[in-house]
Amino acid sequence: MNVNKDTITDLVIAALDKDIPPRNRQILTSLIRHMHDFCREVDLSFAEWLAACEFLRRAGDISDEKRNEFILICDILGVEVLVDMLDHRVTDGESESTVLGPFYRENPPVLAKGASIIKKTFDNAQTVMVSGRITDTAGRPIEGVTIDVWEDAPNGLYDLQDPEQPAYNLRGRFMTDGDGEYAFVALRPEPYPIPYDGAGGELLKYMGHHPWRPGHIHFMLSKDGYQSLISQIYDSETKYLDNDSVFAVKQSLIGQFKKAPAGANTDLVLDFDFKLKKAEVERLVAAE
Amino acid sequence: MNVNKDTITDLVIAALDKDIPPRNRQILTSLIRHMHDFCREVDLSFAEWLAACEFLRRAGDISDEKRNEFILICDILGVEVLVDMLDHRVTDGESESTVLGPFYRENPPVLAKGASIIKKTFDNAQTVMVSGRITDTAGRPIEGVTIDVWEDAPNGLYDLQDPEQPAYNLRGRFMTDGDGEYAFVALRPEPYPIPYDGAGGELLKYMGHHPWRPGHIHFMLSKDGYQSLISQIYDSETKYLDNDSVFAVKQSLIGQFKKAPAGANTDLVLDFDFKLKKAEVERLVAAE
Repeated sequence: MNVNKDTITDLVIAALDKDIPPRNRQILTSLIRHMHDFCREVDLSFAEWLAACEFLRRAGDISDEKRNEFILICDILGVEVLVDMLDHRVTDGESESTVLGPFYRENPPVLAKGASIIKKTFDNAQTVMVSGRITDTAGRPIEGVTIDVWEDAPNGLYDLQDPEQPAYNLRGRFMTDGDGEYAFVALRPEPYPIPYDGAGGELLKYMGHHPWRPGHIHFMLSKDGYQSLISQIYDSETKYLDNDSVFAVKQSLIGQFKKAPAGANTDLVLDFDFKLKKAEVERLVAAE
Repeated sequence: MNVNKDTITDLVIAALDKDIPPRNRQILTSLIRHMHDFCREVDLSFAEWLAACEFLRRAGDISDEKRNEFILICDILGVEVLVDMLDHRVTDGESESTVLGPFYRENPPVLAKGASIIKKTFDNAQTVMVSGRITDTAGRPIEGVTIDVWEDAPNGLYDLQDPEQPAYNLRGRFMTDGDGEYAFVALRPEPYPIPYDGAGGELLKYMGHHPWRPGHIHFMLSKDGYQSLISQIYDSETKYLDNDSVFAVKQSLIGQFKKAPAGANTDLVLDFDFKLKKAEVERLVAAE
């Protein structure tokens, strides 16, 4: 009962019921230790703690069905990309994943190989033919991989954010052919700021960091029997490549936007291959 | 740029602007390290992280002007009591502080020494004369200390939570006399559960912990020239003394509710003294 700043941590951990699931206990023990150690390490004042609680309440105030400001706060602190790396460790040479981001939209239009996802033109926008090959980690092409792609427009906005864009502009769903190949026509993606009108913006200011993300195209690849891959291709010539506000850029995900050959129907071409890993369950069955 | 699960932490810290205030840098550096270490230590899955973000959003949903669920979550994890101990270290033998709690209400009725704060009677409730002496750390009585007191009713509810109680029931503001003495008539406080209808309740369930607090009377003492004291007196015979849901009980804050002497106008008496420390500013001036 003689609680003090050094005994309180063990006291709180001792209050955990002995019958809770081991995973709850593991998570809570680590969480309580790190929260308490943080408070002691910086000698957090009561006023600072109260300000933090009010900050979190403001994050709640701006959150709704479409927006979870706590995800954004984690992104700004590098937590989403870390958790993604912990959950998707590259073990067999498969392509690297990165964050999903808040702008994914379900059920984009299903399009034929080589079709365009552009529903609205923008002045001075450059078109690009994106193509590549999806293989397993041994290099064998995979047919029938579903590929969702989405990107922002040259004004830095996704269709969801921009009433001037038609629904599902710059979104599409494709499938690889018998050679594992995919292709679609898109616009060169532009940098854009993550939403900074809420608590996330306050945090960026407190950190002295900017809200910008480098230009990128989102990918989500899935096929039964393979591990799904959520990733992005970054434009090697975009700004903020070394300075992404959510720390999601990986060297292996940087693609080269090249001038298209004469006679092509786009300004640029981008070739980018992905490798998928067999799903764990599939591997266990195969090993029997 | 070759970010991985081990380099990401330094990368995020390196993104802090060099010109932010040193305190921002200190807090953020420690916060980022502890958040990342926690994720690595428990090998947090993406699904668990997302569930945590949704949990925080639900905490936001139930928070409003009167209720900050993030404070409650911190209380349940022992963070408020820790921060209070960090901010109010006992250095001169002054009385120990403890958490303010969410039920404080400003501007309670100003009452004369010995007056009652009971505005509504309850069956089987025991009345108690609470009295004591406020001194400085050298034992000299302090006149004119403002003492706010508040407590829950025998049904476990504060006036704020209970439409059946008149406003400011069981609340009052007193002042010490020339001998530093205070006195008021109250009801013996009962244990009550902290609000568990929101995310805080979910957390308690995840921890396998109960929401109950031991019976106590809240105190807030203030006088110019002295450090304000927010504290509680706990009933030595109450339940949950060893098992407070917010870990706020301290040995030195336990008081004895004794049978009143014959002829007294209450069932019980409770004597409890407080010691206040001179304010830091006052001490600096005195040292000049």
